[in-house]
Amino acid sequence: MKKREYPLEKVYGLLEPGPVVLLTSQKAGTPNVMAQSWHMMLDFEPPLVACVVSNRNYSFGALRETKQCVINIPTAELARKVVGCGNVSGRSLNKFKKFRLTPLEGEVVDVPMIAECYANLECRVVDTRMVERYGVFVLQVMRAWVDSETKWARTLHHRGKGVFMVAGKQLKLPSKKK
Amino acid sequence: MKKREYPLEKVYGLLEPGPVVLLTSQKAGTPNVMAQSWHMMLDFEPPLVACVVSNRNYSFGALRETKQCVINIPTAELARKVVGCGNVSGRSLNKFKKFRLTPLEGEVVDVPMIAECYANLECRVVDTRMVERYGVFVLQVMRAWVDSETKWARTLHHRGKGVFMVAGKQLKLPSKKK
Repeated sequence: MKKREYPLEKVYGLLEPGPVVLLTSQKAGTPNVMAQSWHMMLDFEPPLVACVVSNRNYSFGALRETKQCVINIPTAELARKVVGCGNVSGRSLNKFKKFRLTPLEGEVVDVPMIAECYANLECRVVDTRMVERYGVFVLQVMRAWVDSETKWARTLHHRGKGVFMVAGKQLKLPSKKK
Repeated sequence: MKKREYPLEKVYGLLEPGPVVLLTSQKAGTPNVMAQSWHMMLDFEPPLVACVVSNRNYSFGALRETKQCVINIPTAELARKVVGCGNVSGRSLNKFKKFRLTPLEGEVVDVPMIAECYANLECRVVDTRMVERYGVFVLQVMRAWVDSETKWARTLHHRGKGVFMVAGKQLKLPSKKK
């Protein structure tokens, strides 16, 4: 998979449909991967994303301390690895190794991106004021990468308890809006 | 379409896949409808939802003043009405009338629900502390309704500029998680 840089003003279109993502972080050289569906766009440009990482998640400490992470968007082919990542904690094992995910160096952040994911968004934590109450981190996407070959990503959308909906057919209607 | 009450602890499964929703509100007897994709779950039970309504949106005033709204989830059949609602402002017209949406009385909130949507979530605004900075309202779902006939909702997922992905095939994997 060959990645190309993706314009920041188009990033909202990757997250707005609500795909499950794999959030990567790194603390003291140890990377972690977290399956995540509780995220939303907050602004178009620079792209701001809110996402919930609870203090029960192992990723919480890395996010709070390093203020960096990567949002990786998997396609349906990775469904088993996504569920795998969601079912074990990074406390006990290295999920990159366990699920044979290939780390790819970021350009802006010191966090490995997942090569197998069709899109990677390098993020900095820019606001932690909602962390204590709701576990909400506000992220600014600093650099975005997408697979140059993927025209129509078959993303995964979690309905709960391991049931996913795979992105279906496209519908295009005339619209004046972003 | 016949609606049945839906258990609050299962509500996350309706929003977690990231469908576009129609947010209804009402101010001084005038209802409004807003197409919305920037929302996420904040907690399972009671179900808390964060959603972005900018002060440029007509719905903003109603939400801030009445502290009530309904999250209505449309299926693909309503795509034209969803785009229609997203392209005009409630300042100039009544969208229920314009797009022939049938108002349905809520049980908890004084806001019309949309009969044609397969799910309706009656919500109260419970936290406005993030409104000024990000337009983020925190909603608590008080009562939930779903169409008793819909087994597998063909929801709409917005990719930007009127392009939607329609919910595709289901994938079920063993998982220990919610």
